Amino acid sequence: MEKITSLAKRRGFVFQSSEIYGGQSGAWDYGPLGIELKNRIAATWWKEMTQFHDDIVGLDSAILMHPRTWEASGHVENFTDPLVDCKKCKTRFRSDMIPEAELAAKKCPECGGELTDIRKFNLMFQTHIGAAEDTASIIYLRPETAQGIYVNYKNIIQSSRMKIPFGIAQIGKAFRNEIVTKNFIFRTCEFEQMEMQFFVKPGTDDTWFEEWKKRRWAYYGKMGVKMDHLRWHQHGPDELAHYAKDAYDIQYLFPMGWRELEGIHNRTDYDLSRHTQYSGKDMQYIDQDNSNERYIPYIVETSAGLTRNVLMLLCDAYDEEQVTPEKNSGSSEGSADDWRTVLRFHPKLAPITVAVLPLMKKDGLAEMAQDIRSELKEDFAVDYDQAGAIGRRYRRQDEAGTPFCVTVDYQSKEDSTVTLRFRDSMEQVRVPITELALRLQQEIKAYKRLK
Amino acid sequence: MEKITSLAKRRGFVFQSSEIYGGQSGAWDYGPLGIELKNRIAATWWKEMTQFHDDIVGLDSAILMHPRTWEASGHVENFTDPLVDCKKCKTRFRSDMIPEAELAAKKCPECGGELTDIRKFNLMFQTHIGAAEDTASIIYLRPETAQGIYVNYKNIIQSSRMKIPFGIAQIGKAFRNEIVTKNFIFRTCEFEQMEMQFFVKPGTDDTWFEEWKKRRWAYYGKMGVKMDHLRWHQHGPDELAHYAKDAYDIQYLFPMGWRELEGIHNRTDYDLSRHTQYSGKDMQYIDQDNSNERYIPYIVETSAGLTRNVLMLLCDAYDEEQVTPEKNSGSSEGSADDWRTVLRFHPKLAPITVAVLPLMKKDGLAEMAQDIRSELKEDFAVDYDQAGAIGRRYRRQDEAGTPFCVTVDYQSKEDSTVTLRFRDSMEQVRVPITELALRLQQEIKAYKRLK
Repeated sequence: MEKITSLAKRRGFVFQSSEIYGGQSGAWDYGPLGIELKNRIAATWWKEMTQFHDDIVGLDSAILMHPRTWEASGHVENFTDPLVDCKKCKTRFRSDMIPEAELAAKKCPECGGELTDIRKFNLMFQTHIGAAEDTASIIYLRPETAQGIYVNYKNIIQSSRMKIPFGIAQIGKAFRNEIVTKNFIFRTCEFEQMEMQFFVKPGTDDTWFEEWKKRRWAYYGKMGVKMDHLRWHQHGPDELAHYAKDAYDIQYLFPMGWRELEGIHNRTDYDLSRHTQYSGKDMQYIDQDNSNERYIPYIVETSAGLTRNVLMLLCDAYDEEQVTPEKNSGSSEGSADDWRTVLRFHPKLAPITVAVLPLMKKDGLAEMAQDIRSELKEDFAVDYDQAGAIGRRYRRQDEAGTPFCVTVDYQSKEDSTVTLRFRDSMEQVRVPITELALRLQQEIKAYKRLK
Repeated sequence: MEKITSLAKRRGFVFQSSEIYGGQSGAWDYGPLGIELKNRIAATWWKEMTQFHDDIVGLDSAILMHPRTWEASGHVENFTDPLVDCKKCKTRFRSDMIPEAELAAKKCPECGGELTDIRKFNLMFQTHIGAAEDTASIIYLRPETAQGIYVNYKNIIQSSRMKIPFGIAQIGKAFRNEIVTKNFIFRTCEFEQMEMQFFVKPGTDDTWFEEWKKRRWAYYGKMGVKMDHLRWHQHGPDELAHYAKDAYDIQYLFPMGWRELEGIHNRTDYDLSRHTQYSGKDMQYIDQDNSNERYIPYIVETSAGLTRNVLMLLCDAYDEEQVTPEKNSGSSEGSADDWRTVLRFHPKLAPITVAVLPLMKKDGLAEMAQDIRSELKEDFAVDYDQAGAIGRRYRRQDEAGTPFCVTVDYQSKEDSTVTLRFRDSMEQVRVPITELALRLQQEIKAYKRLK
């Protein structure tokens, strides 16, 4: 993880937030490569949900919602951590993280000092809206994006003529005042979720739950993720949220162990029933194709962390490899003790799709490379680099996860071909400049991960 | 504006936030069509900035920043509105909105009651991070995205090897506790900005300022906006922010009049100098190509509202038109008293690019249409609609701003062609199914707005 954190900073994937002021804990900034990776993950998920599924539409609800939303959802009452403080060393703990013996004796596990009583600490950030700071003006930063979908479900049925079963997809930020943030961008106070809420007829929920488990598992395959680094984890009775009938996590094998990447939950009719109760609005669905039968739909939720997906893909793509001349015949790369760091992103997700590199700046090679860059930039994310030895430039692109490099050399001036160099195999082939764009498109579609 | 607000709700562009709870003022939710429009505006701007400009990279900094950032920027001290309350009717006013005579007499312009003294009201939302609610834990929701760029400028130079002049682009949410929110999504408490900060050598700032004025004006032309609805407004001495040397707004003629759409500002070295002062970090640029000359760069900012661009494009695209049979020869559309509402979005921005419509559900037409939908959905945003008369379906797509409709009819079964119907002209042509995707791509590239 240390290597990944360090690469992420050095190459501009992720920076510590407000670093010049000593950093803001719980928040991170995505640099030039990081935001491109994050954008591509989000766009891939969005396309999968809204474009490939006829029966799913998108939504983007506000972070600031009416406070009663969070009473209805149960967050005001229940979204709490149990905290204790040490009166002596002032360290703060989640009481469920303290060994039972120390907790029973009310002794600090760090210094042996006396612990305070356990108090409930609500994880929602709260602020005030309007000019008065009183209880009437309290408003929360949403701790999850799902509720924005639930309160809009009738609006969407009316405006988009949706019929059950159907889904609503949303990508957006959520905020939790986590006392312990750790593991880089894995658990943070400010994070992004990709949630899809699928509304079904009660009684069909188990079938749809299984269906969405299948689809979400298959999705990570299409992203090119190492499938032996994924596993299912079913929530036991002690883990199951109060609203859930069944819940499975897709876990990924992060450097710190197996951790949740995405949850698939059968949330039953809990949320819509609670919103009916708190808003006084009828949240029943009217089935016009079935003698106007009325019911409160069940909801199957797929809830993935976008920022957590960024971390997963950085870990999944990260590789170190010895570059031996044998492995690498036909190019100038490699020597007996040469190692490279390479991020093996799927070309659809890589921040830079293709780098255009003139072998030399002089003799018109730079101009030729710039022309190729201009040609490609309408359809691809292109980088241009003319600084340093070509081998070092390849290494820099490997570290950025760039799947294709195009090198313009002296032969290019003679026969209008370029070298196309592949990140994973380091193989090189010559391609006519006129066929370059098409060839890149084919390579992206046909991409198979080597290791 | 009322018509646009009503269409926006009816067709799922924009909903009132938390409507079932009576609405949350200052916040809006983007429905299925609204989020697609917003995403496309954002993607167009992002591509323009980061992909078409070699010298601009992206960033996505956190909403929660270290609080000292806002001391350095001047927001803690100066980002205030002057407020007064009426002691009698309790109405709250911005004192600069009250006629001078009433303000001098301290009389309420509504009821004549006595007004309180003027007090400074800071527009930043504040909350607490961590378990303690004391002054040490105060943190703000960022009121602008720009500062996230400034505090990262050295990180980006190091990680992305940028040399001055260069720019950093960012899209993200910002929050202002506006006491008076109005004009639909024009002024809201939660909104999105698209900001690009361009770092230049002092002395070259005026030239770059002019250059960015030119580029940003040209950009709106490429978006297909009515150029006679745009104008420049230069900030007078009383409008100019304390950090600005010069500032121009691009204003758009909204239904409520000319209003700011985007600002181009010469922010000088104000922000980086302040961050040097408050962080103790050296924010000077070292010009390695020029004997390591050191200076604090000047910054030329282009700052556009993303959500405001959504409103602008809804207004700009909105049209009502009489559909006469003559205007509309060769189709079944129109009668003497037929009117249609149409959103004339550029096809690149339209939430739905193409709608596939089987003339009838029976006789295999629906299956044929579904096949065409599946073919197109990899590359286009496709809608499928088989409900109701074909004329009504065209009207629904007009209201959604869909530039192309594809109708599958009985002839399609004979000769494998479909009707391609154009939103703006309502013209119809027959196209072989095998050529449909290519034709659509050509039409999108060649699009010229008719009115």
